[in-house]
Amino acid sequence: MDLLHPGSHRAAGLVDDHALVAAMLDVEVAWFDALAKVGVASRQQAELVAVTAEQWRPAIDQLVVDAEAAGNPVVALVAGLRAAVPDPAAAALVHRGLTSQDVLDTALMLLARAALARIRDNLCTLARDLASLVRAHSNTIMAGRTLTQYAVPITFGLKAAHWLAGVLGALELVRNSADRLPAQCGGAAGTLSLAGELTESPLILARAFADALELRDPGAPWHTTRTPITDIGHCLVTTCDALGVIASDTVQLGRPEIGELSEGVVVGRGGSSTMPHKRNPVLGVLVRNAALQAPLLGAQLHLAAAQAVDERPDGAWHSEWNALRTLLELTVTASSQARELIAGLEVHLDVMAQRATAAAEALLAERGSEDRDPATYLGSSVEFADRILDRFDRIPGEGRK
Amino acid sequence: MDLLHPGSHRAAGLVDDHALVAAMLDVEVAWFDALAKVGVASRQQAELVAVTAEQWRPAIDQLVVDAEAAGNPVVALVAGLRAAVPDPAAAALVHRGLTSQDVLDTALMLLARAALARIRDNLCTLARDLASLVRAHSNTIMAGRTLTQYAVPITFGLKAAHWLAGVLGALELVRNSADRLPAQCGGAAGTLSLAGELTESPLILARAFADALELRDPGAPWHTTRTPITDIGHCLVTTCDALGVIASDTVQLGRPEIGELSEGVVVGRGGSSTMPHKRNPVLGVLVRNAALQAPLLGAQLHLAAAQAVDERPDGAWHSEWNALRTLLELTVTASSQARELIAGLEVHLDVMAQRATAAAEALLAERGSEDRDPATYLGSSVEFADRILDRFDRIPGEGRK
Amino acid sequence: MDLLHPGSHRAAGLVDDHALVAAMLDVEVAWFDALAKVGVASRQQAELVAVTAEQWRPAIDQLVVDAEAAGNPVVALVAGLRAAVPDPAAAALVHRGLTSQDVLDTALMLLARAALARIRDNLCTLARDLASLVRAHSNTIMAGRTLTQYAVPITFGLKAAHWLAGVLGALELVRNSADRLPAQCGGAAGTLSLAGELTESPLILARAFADALELRDPGAPWHTTRTPITDIGHCLVTTCDALGVIASDTVQLGRPEIGELSEGVVVGRGGSSTMPHKRNPVLGVLVRNAALQAPLLGAQLHLAAAQAVDERPDGAWHSEWNALRTLLELTVTASSQARELIAGLEVHLDVMAQRATAAAEALLAERGSEDRDPATYLGSSVEFADRILDRFDRIPGEGRK
Amino acid sequence: MDLLHPGSHRAAGLVDDHALVAAMLDVEVAWFDALAKVGVASRQQAELVAVTAEQWRPAIDQLVVDAEAAGNPVVALVAGLRAAVPDPAAAALVHRGLTSQDVLDTALMLLARAALARIRDNLCTLARDLASLVRAHSNTIMAGRTLTQYAVPITFGLKAAHWLAGVLGALELVRNSADRLPAQCGGAAGTLSLAGELTESPLILARAFADALELRDPGAPWHTTRTPITDIGHCLVTTCDALGVIASDTVQLGRPEIGELSEGVVVGRGGSSTMPHKRNPVLGVLVRNAALQAPLLGAQLHLAAAQAVDERPDGAWHSEWNALRTLLELTVTASSQARELIAGLEVHLDVMAQRATAAAEALLAERGSEDRDPATYLGSSVEFADRILDRFDRIPGEGRK
Repeated sequence: MDLLHPGSHRAAGLVDDHALVAAMLDVEVAWFDALAKVGVASRQQAELVAVTAEQWRPAIDQLVVDAEAAGNPVVALVAGLRAAVPDPAAAALVHRGLTSQDVLDTALMLLARAALARIRDNLCTLARDLASLVRAHSNTIMAGRTLTQYAVPITFGLKAAHWLAGVLGALELVRNSADRLPAQCGGAAGTLSLAGELTESPLILARAFADALELRDPGAPWHTTRTPITDIGHCLVTTCDALGVIASDTVQLGRPEIGELSEGVVVGRGGSSTMPHKRNPVLGVLVRNAALQAPLLGAQLHLAAAQAVDERPDGAWHSEWNALRTLLELTVTASSQARELIAGLEVHLDVMAQRATAAAEALLAERGSEDRDPATYLGSSVEFADRILDRFDRIPGEGRK
Repeated sequence: MDLLHPGSHRAAGLVDDHALVAAMLDVEVAWFDALAKVGVASRQQAELVAVTAEQWRPAIDQLVVDAEAAGNPVVALVAGLRAAVPDPAAAALVHRGLTSQDVLDTALMLLARAALARIRDNLCTLARDLASLVRAHSNTIMAGRTLTQYAVPITFGLKAAHWLAGVLGALELVRNSADRLPAQCGGAAGTLSLAGELTESPLILARAFADALELRDPGAPWHTTRTPITDIGHCLVTTCDALGVIASDTVQLGRPEIGELSEGVVVGRGGSSTMPHKRNPVLGVLVRNAALQAPLLGAQLHLAAAQAVDERPDGAWHSEWNALRTLLELTVTASSQARELIAGLEVHLDVMAQRATAAAEALLAERGSEDRDPATYLGSSVEFADRILDRFDRIPGEGRK
Repeated sequence: MDLLHPGSHRAAGLVDDHALVAAMLDVEVAWFDALAKVGVASRQQAELVAVTAEQWRPAIDQLVVDAEAAGNPVVALVAGLRAAVPDPAAAALVHRGLTSQDVLDTALMLLARAALARIRDNLCTLARDLASLVRAHSNTIMAGRTLTQYAVPITFGLKAAHWLAGVLGALELVRNSADRLPAQCGGAAGTLSLAGELTESPLILARAFADALELRDPGAPWHTTRTPITDIGHCLVTTCDALGVIASDTVQLGRPEIGELSEGVVVGRGGSSTMPHKRNPVLGVLVRNAALQAPLLGAQLHLAAAQAVDERPDGAWHSEWNALRTLLELTVTASSQARELIAGLEVHLDVMAQRATAAAEALLAERGSEDRDPATYLGSSVEFADRILDRFDRIPGEGRK
Repeated sequence: MDLLHPGSHRAAGLVDDHALVAAMLDVEVAWFDALAKVGVASRQQAELVAVTAEQWRPAIDQLVVDAEAAGNPVVALVAGLRAAVPDPAAAALVHRGLTSQDVLDTALMLLARAALARIRDNLCTLARDLASLVRAHSNTIMAGRTLTQYAVPITFGLKAAHWLAGVLGALELVRNSADRLPAQCGGAAGTLSLAGELTESPLILARAFADALELRDPGAPWHTTRTPITDIGHCLVTTCDALGVIASDTVQLGRPEIGELSEGVVVGRGGSSTMPHKRNPVLGVLVRNAALQAPLLGAQLHLAAAQAVDERPDGAWHSEWNALRTLLELTVTASSQARELIAGLEVHLDVMAQRATAAAEALLAERGSEDRDPATYLGSSVEFADRILDRFDRIPGEGRK
């Protein structure tokens, strides 16, 4: 949440440094809990650590400073947590057997889970509203445009259906990603070597750790196989792509010379610092803003994945963090903004109709006949829109079917 | 295939301009065939067009020049094909009802299918060879390294297993992508308007078109919903990521000071223009080269998808083409090179063993005990490798199970 | 020049594989010439090599295949050239003392020089035509638009002046880049070690080499200091940025609902495969296409530069080549297309005037007065346009001053 | 400054939201000051506004929320500032004549100035220390490596000289960028329309505004000509490129198997959460981290520049902000870390010497003679290092000359 990302309060508390600290502490607590499950620690110790972690919060500013010495914030966080645990034996067991990457990767999965849940909610609402638009406008004729010029007539329902298709595709990826989020648990170099000193069954320990966090046990560490990260990235960028198309279309069709769509009026929104009368398409602009940034953030994740050398790489891993967090925040924000944009969208039926009529000659030139009524040249617009609507209707708990 | 992409002869004929022309002609023939199926054209006309398209090939250089007028090569190609069809009535029906984007998008799917098939083959072989490495080296001890420094001991089998995990993940994406490739069929603005003038059942026509090409009928056009393109992109970049890790590791471990791995000796390969004695890790370097390029090419596809405005956008669509083709060629080439790299990989067991012993103090420092035998501190290396191997073994037709 | 880059025939012969081979041979000839200058080779040998290189051309396809063994095309090319030189002593001296990177880097500088010269010509013509537009339309009132909505009135001359400002900035970078192109000359690891065996004055040899090619002698090799490459990249991307703004504005203002600008009519251009009546803004769309691709290609060059480890890196260097070549070709093509776009641009004065009048209330709302004539609220439009024009006029040989 | 960017406390206060708010307020004060200079406001009013802006600070969290309504933080900030100014007439004049983009663009220039000054200081110190390394090691022989394999001998002085060459190139760009930072001053659509209502000499007002901030008066607004932003981006990315090479080399040469360089020992740094004995090359890893991110952030700026349509674009402008800020913070941090890395760099002369001797056969194979002393085959290593040193020495106030 920052001033250069307008709307980022919509993602407040989800992925910021406080959320990250909380997530890392959750990871340490889950690990301790797992240690207790396999008998390495006592149940009382586990409760003590859980209570301590619940109450203790480090000063973020100092943690940032301290994070540099290890190249990541985990070492300093663990030192602080250990110092806060009043029982020295329990303190010594905190984090024991884990490595920084286990904690940070897993904590990022927790942040991703929270953000993906929010994104899913936003996309579900958005899909419902788009489905309503599709149904409401199955016969609303408008000009189709290719390469900026008039092509043939379409329906606004078909346009909205294509927006919906994009959102449904994104939603499927979001659901898949959210269901597959893995814990990271490998110790120093991905062998659970130290955990193996503590217990005869480190694999059970790893499973208990994942279970405690309700994350997937991936079966083996993924320290240098970064598909869990890049898959989330692809899911987020694809979401922003779908939102970007909606935003670009609404912004274009809201140009005053076109005037077929406009963002709903919200008091105080869309004004200018010098021209208070203006109604800028703020939501559309901000969603487009996100869509223009997401692809490069996703590429950053792939670049890191492609260079994950050794058992932990020398910089590539680190270069993921900011990109992933920014991408999560942008997508939460943009999906919320897009949802609001569509919920309030004003469809200017009269303008659409008048333009389709006025542009009929161009819109029907392909046909080559004398008929000049765009309504007679819609091809399969309605059927295509219905088919996409069908996909929505088949989503359990969402559609009519 | 070009001089600045060494190894690109491995992808010769798959995605170049000749392959593209052939694919576009295949698309036109399939469309005509579908027109015949629904009774718009006669069977004889369809055969005439098929034969003509089989025999006629435009001069590529002239087609490049002519392509600019329409902003894509389809218009000029269709004009040429029509002129080559001896029956004017049949010629007039060529391409009728389609739009340029239908032809180009579908042709790119055909190129993608050919490339993905090759990539799948390469990855299958690579996976088999990696599985053999995992099995052969389940007890081969080597130093684990994080942030370039010694961490704890691992097995080479575990390292190879992580490589395998990356390849299996890529293979799954490749299979999914290859199975889902959709035809594009929408006409001028995605409504099949003109097709609807030709037949009462344009949706059956669209289905027949997809069937003729053995592509998936997506149910509706995806002119501005570019997930078929971005999904392929993600699949290809993820593949290059997995290959990049293998290449980076082998190149690093092949540094003369490390010397634990080296590329197989091939006469004439790896030499230098001035130092003929050198044995450069050419395959690894070239695979890394691909892995460094793939992420940005994938991002280019997403950037286009995010800006697919109107019923066809004003530049974004065009910006996909070169990125997709380059990415296909890079991935075919890199997967072939990586396969060869692993097939010929030399594992220097003695060096691995000596180093693990020499570095035992560092490798076992975590343990804190007096024991100095790395073999006793492998943690779950073997189990993790086995679990990844299990994933391979469960692939139908591949593994042991 | 390829089918997926419409218009690339405008860059025909500048940067393709034939041009690259010719450039690499020029480099080898220049090196031999320099060897003769310092007495290592005889003048007759130098002439023999020059004549041979002039006449000999390798089969590109075979060279691609052969290029893989060394990871670059130079080793195979040198082998072919040596075999073609009838005098064994001269043949043995070919390339002696150079390394592959010297040849390829320098050859790419030669390609860059040819492309930059073409780009400069295109930008000069474009700047002149834009300057004419600025002068012709210093009083042409039109609506200013921010965030797609009406803002305050501007002049079309001011808009054209901003286009000109972008082009002038690009032109300055192009001139600087073109004047600074360095030869690369370092031998195996940048020490001229082998050259130092041939002559006591390898630095004079390096200077003679650069002189023979009319490139700058950089004083020291830049094998791993890639600013010559990234500077060219920045220059090309900045050029595409400036062209992209022009194209985006003309495409937007050419929407049928806006209709203030349109691309000149060229018979056969802008048609559609299904709607022959259409006049698509093909040049604008293709220039936008280039502008959407250039930034990632430039980033690829920086990514390589940032990882130029050792005395020659293990993949990063290779990842530059295709990006640089594609960027050169895109920029030559786009600058040529933009030049033609502006030369033929149709300015619809009546539409601009009518819209400014019709939108007067919005355009003058900021002012808060009752006056409703946009012509009275132009602020410093004219002065700003004049100041930008002044920059053009001060260019020696271009402007009026 | 955040947890996922270890070391970012080195840039504390330079570019964060508090610094941004302060900069935006500075811009408003400077504008008011300029209004007073041309007689639109009184001197007393200007002082009142300046004092108010000095004392008033908005709650950042609320400002983030409020920023969304206008799509940028300026409108809400101005409303707050106006409310805080006790004189209504003065309050009404605050910001009058400016537009949000003027304030935000100019404020970002102020942040850039502060960051560039810090970067310049860091690079100057770094250059001095590198120059010392070059001088100290002009005869320190080490193995040259290309494509990871032994090539010919070099000196460590030459390697350090290449690092220095990269830094000097970056420093030149930083100096040029810092000296050219322009104010942005155009009003609603870049015509100073409203300012022209306030005074007969809006151009003098614009000049006074730039002067008050000690920024360059660019002569005309650059609302849609984003070269000031992309030039800064290129300067920052080029800086990170140069730092990335240094970091990559030191990290590689610090691998335990190579051991020729290592980061200086700092108590508490480089440890691991599980292996406290480890000495990870933290500074090198973090600098590499920055170098891997910078190229895509620079590309983001170009992507925005290429799509700056209308008089202010619908999303592209917004997509610059986060990229620019992140890039500034990364480069400040990385340049500080690199400076510290080099200041503390340990050069293991014995290891370098032993390796050069042990690898003599490979290092001298090019030569083909029987001589086996690497010291006799250094070519122009010393001269090249001296030439690069000369560039440093010619910097006024830096070098010896």
